[in-house]
Formats: sequence, structure tokens, C-alpha cells
Amino acid sequence: MRILITGGGGFLGQKLAKHLCETGTIAQYDISEITLADIQKPLGISGAVHISRVIADISKAEDAKALFAQKPDIIFHLAAVVSGAAEADLDLGMRVNLGGTINILESARQQGEKTGQPPMVIFASSVAVHGGEAPAVVPDGVELNPQSSYGTQKAIGELLVQDYSRRGLIDGRGLRLPTVTIRPGKANAAASSFMSSIFRDTLQGGNANCPVPREFPVWHSSPRTVVENLIHAAEVPAEAFGYNRNLNLPGRTDTIGEMIEAMTAVAGPDAATRITWESDPAIEKIVSGWRGYFRPEKGLALGFKPDISFEKSVQYFLEDDIVLPQGS
Amino acid sequence: MRILITGGGGFLGQKLAKHLCETGTIAQYDISEITLADIQKPLGISGAVHISRVIADISKAEDAKALFAQKPDIIFHLAAVVSGAAEADLDLGMRVNLGGTINILESARQQGEKTGQPPMVIFASSVAVHGGEAPAVVPDGVELNPQSSYGTQKAIGELLVQDYSRRGLIDGRGLRLPTVTIRPGKANAAASSFMSSIFRDTLQGGNANCPVPREFPVWHSSPRTVVENLIHAAEVPAEAFGYNRNLNLPGRTDTIGEMIEAMTAVAGPDAATRITWESDPAIEKIVSGWRGYFRPEKGLALGFKPDISFEKSVQYFLEDDIVLPQGS
Repeated sequence: MRILITGGGGFLGQKLAKHLCETGTIAQYDISEITLADIQKPLGISGAVHISRVIADISKAEDAKALFAQKPDIIFHLAAVVSGAAEADLDLGMRVNLGGTINILESARQQGEKTGQPPMVIFASSVAVHGGEAPAVVPDGVELNPQSSYGTQKAIGELLVQDYSRRGLIDGRGLRLPTVTIRPGKANAAASSFMSSIFRDTLQGGNANCPVPREFPVWHSSPRTVVENLIHAAEVPAEAFGYNRNLNLPGRTDTIGEMIEAMTAVAGPDAATRITWESDPAIEKIVSGWRGYFRPEKGLALGFKPDISFEKSVQYFLEDDIVLPQGS
Repeated sequence: MRILITGGGGFLGQKLAKHLCETGTIAQYDISEITLADIQKPLGISGAVHISRVIADISKAEDAKALFAQKPDIIFHLAAVVSGAAEADLDLGMRVNLGGTINILESARQQGEKTGQPPMVIFASSVAVHGGEAPAVVPDGVELNPQSSYGTQKAIGELLVQDYSRRGLIDGRGLRLPTVTIRPGKANAAASSFMSSIFRDTLQGGNANCPVPREFPVWHSSPRTVVENLIHAAEVPAEAFGYNRNLNLPGRTDTIGEMIEAMTAVAGPDAATRITWESDPAIEKIVSGWRGYFRPEKGLALGFKPDISFEKSVQYFLEDDIVLPQGS
């Protein structure tokens, strides 16, 4: 199995590659090669699997096409301009999130037409496709009504993944990721960035601002669980998806306040004291357009997993990701 | 009011322009000019309103942009590669139905940014956005799950109309048209073409084939009613649409058999004897992916109208459109 990961330099792409290197298999096949592609050269991963690291701007058709030189069997399409950035710059989001996704799907299609074997494309969609007229608790089968350009572009990607799959051009699977927290690294332009930083940065000795009230409910999943679900997506038989290759991933709902209590229970009371509470209307407007409660029955039936507790998510962060300040 | 109609050479664009010429107003404003744009030069319309007829390929950005030279206040975006053709040629559908719609929306956005007045864009979407995992009777708010590339491209157009409207770049309204029957003219590459030809062609003395059984239910609307609903879309206050600028238009459900009985009741038994019944799996596959029953509550609440009966639709055809063979 040759695997291509777009957004391979991002925290999720890196964690996914690391996991695949450790197991060396996917869907019971041996992995021979992983290509990590990103706009900047991705970090390497040590392990038994051969890793290629490629700089590519998927919004350019020729860059996307070049990623298929090695004829990947499975493409994890994670690359995206994040929500805050796509809201601030419509053209950028359209170019990368829409145009880039079309370029990846078209390249996958061309490979399939050449080889006679449509490649599998696992597409990272987002909870941000839901909002607006969706009910407060979102069951499966609700009209996507994104209230951000990021969510709109992800919803469009889903429709294309479904149509290309229906036509037999690819074997697509689209997963709507809950807010992924606690994500490692630095704060970014995602509107949800604070949903990690108030835990990550304070656990690492820094400060972080929470722009929404404690009562704000978050539909979330840990990076470790999201990686497991991305890999599980490759193991589900195509026909099990029925008429729709896209689904809400399982997750769990906790309020910001409950998540802070969980952090305190696992790591002590210090971190929470370093959270500030200045409201930010621009951030709040985007994230309150998302939904906090879901009933992801299809995802659960297909064997995708939620986290057990946010306490566990804090433990995963401490085990996998924490970077303590020098001298501590 | 300056009005631009893409697909202005099509039967719906022509009927819409004719109606607007007759009334001379839209949303209580006088109409000063109507531009009909199509891939071939549209036929002219006689009336008091000035009509421009323009050849334009909206899949080319410069052609789309040129249509905005007159700064239209309202754009009826009807142009599309029809369902059968978009299914037969994915690239063509992507280029015109997706790329062309982006070009129209971008041109409208640029005009709005220049003038400070976002133009209104009324987008003809389609019942073909529904299918797959949608319930047998489709209420509002159901996930779009198109089972054709045409439906996929229309669903994407809807998402863009919604996002551009949410951002204040346009004032968009997307209407999911039921199958429009009885449409005048010639058979075309729409999978639904037979849903008009078995009435139109037989009423005009010709033969027509019905590729599906009599029991097949059709969610339909007459051209006259669809034109009235397109015009009504310009009269609904933007805020009445809530968080979603797209909606299922009212229509009615009759089986093919019931529609034939209605034709017989209005026009006598001859026409029905000229219908042949050879099944066509390719056509049947597309149209049985559509839904026959809807509960378009939002559309009704906003004042959009269904037809009263298919008998009325037959009468409209006899009044508006029938072309009798020479010598009859």
C-alpha cells in the first residue's frame, strides 16, 4: 500500500503518519511508502516505512498531479485553509479548499482511469458543515447549512467525494471531524484554536484566552481518536456507506467548563488559573454557528469511535504531545 | 431594474422574459432592460421592455464578466448543462454547472463590491439534489444526497449562493425546481425529457416513448407556475429566508398514469394512443434516483405556489405552447 497524506505537515497528518509507521499496515495490507505533502516541507517520521516529504500547493493542478506520480492506493486528503483564515479570505479558501480538493479528486480519477483501480480517498470534512437551520441536536441526514466559508467549502468537497465515488472514479469516504482537541503545536487561524490552546498552552505553563463562556458546548474528539477513525475509514467496506460516503464522526459533548474541570482532575488546578476570559465576537460568531450536540448513528454503526472522556483526552495529550517549558 | 437571464435562450428563460415584458415590473420596480444570454443567440421577445440578446459561454470567466457590463440588478441564473448531458460528460457539467455558476457569482460579487449594492441572484436549482438516503417523502431540511452529477453540481451551486449571500456579496435565492412539465420545444438531453414529450409530442400529433412504468410518481410543476415562482423569488424579503437561501419549490405529485388521464380528460383520447412504453434503464436509473413526494413547507410559507392540477398544466400548454402539425 502506498499512502499519500495531503496536509502531511499538519499535526493530524504527522500523527496519522506516525501511527501508520508504527503499525506498518492499513486495512490488513502492508504499507510500503507514505508521502507527506504540504505547502512547507513536512517533518520526517522515523520508522520502518519509507517516508517521502514533498512541498506541494494543491491549489495548483500540476502540483496536485505530481503527488500521484507514485500511484498512491490511499489518499488521506487533510490539507485545508482553516476556518478563521477561510472566513477572512474567501478567495484563498475557494482556491485551496474547493480548487485544491477538485485537483486532488481529478488526479485520483486520472490515476484510476489509467490503472483501472480507483484509489481510495479519505476526506477530512468538518463539523462546520452543520449550522443555521440544523436542529440543536444534529441527527444523521440533516441538510448541511454551514455558516462559514470553510464549512461551505468542506460541504462542497463532500458532494464531490460522493459524486466521484458514485461514478466509480474513486472510492471516497468523507468524515466530518468534531473539533479536534487537545491539538499540539501553536495556536492557528482556526476559529476553534482556543478550544485547544486553553488546555495545551496552560498545561505547558503559558496563558490562553477563552473567547466564549464556560457554558459553551463543544462537540470534540482527541487527536488520537481522530487518527484511529481516519484509519478505520479505510477498513469499512465501500458498500456499507450506502448512498452517502459522508458521515458525522462520533465525538462527545462537553462544555468548556466541564473540559476545564477534567483538565484540573487530571493535571491539578494550576493550568486553569492561566485562562483569561475576554470575549471575541468574531470568533464567537463563527463557533456559535457550529453545533454542539450530535447523534452520529451511522458513524457508530460503521465502527467509528468516540472518546471515553475529556479526562482521557488530557491524558493522551500528556502522553503524546506536551512540551514543557525549559527549566520545568 | 436591469435584469440578466442566463440560459435566456432556453424555454424557461424565454417564458420568464416574455412574462416580465408583459408586466413591465418586478418586485414593484419598473424594468428598464432585460439581457438574455445563452450559448447561442436567444430569440427576441417583443414588448415594451428593451431586450438585449447576447452569446456567452458562462464557463469562460471573461464571458460571464461581460454580462455584467450593464450592471444588472437581478440575475436569473438558469443556464445549465441538463441532467442527462451532465451525467454523460462529467467534465462538461463541472465546467458549466459548477465553473459557470462560480463565474456568475464572482462577477455579481465584483459588481456589488464596485457599486456598493450586492445584486440579487435567483438560482435555478433542481429536485435532482434530493435522492439516495433522503426519505421517500422529502420534508425541508433533509441532507442533499444527489444521485447524479447534475444534482451534485446544483447542490454545490446552492451552497455557494448561500455562502455568498451570508457574506453579503450577493442577495441570493435558490429554488429547487420540480420537474417542469409540459415544457415546449424539442426533446433534450435531460433525463426528464420524456416527462414532457409524452404529453407535448403526442398532443402535437407525434409519438413519444415513456421509459418508466405508469405507476412512476413525478414531482412536477408547469412552466407557467415555475415562471411565477421565479418572479416571486425576487419579491420575498431577504430576511424571510432565514439561514438558508435555498428551498424546495412547491409542486405536485402525480403518477405518469394520472398525468396521462388528465391529458385525456382535457384533450381527448388520441394523444395517449401515441405513447410507446419501451423501458430505458439509463434514464430510469437517473430519474428513479429523484424523489416523487415532498412537503415544501418553507416554500409554501414564503408564498411560492404549486399547480392546482395536471389538467391545468395541459390547458396552459394548449394556450401557451402547442405547435400543431401543418394541415391539421
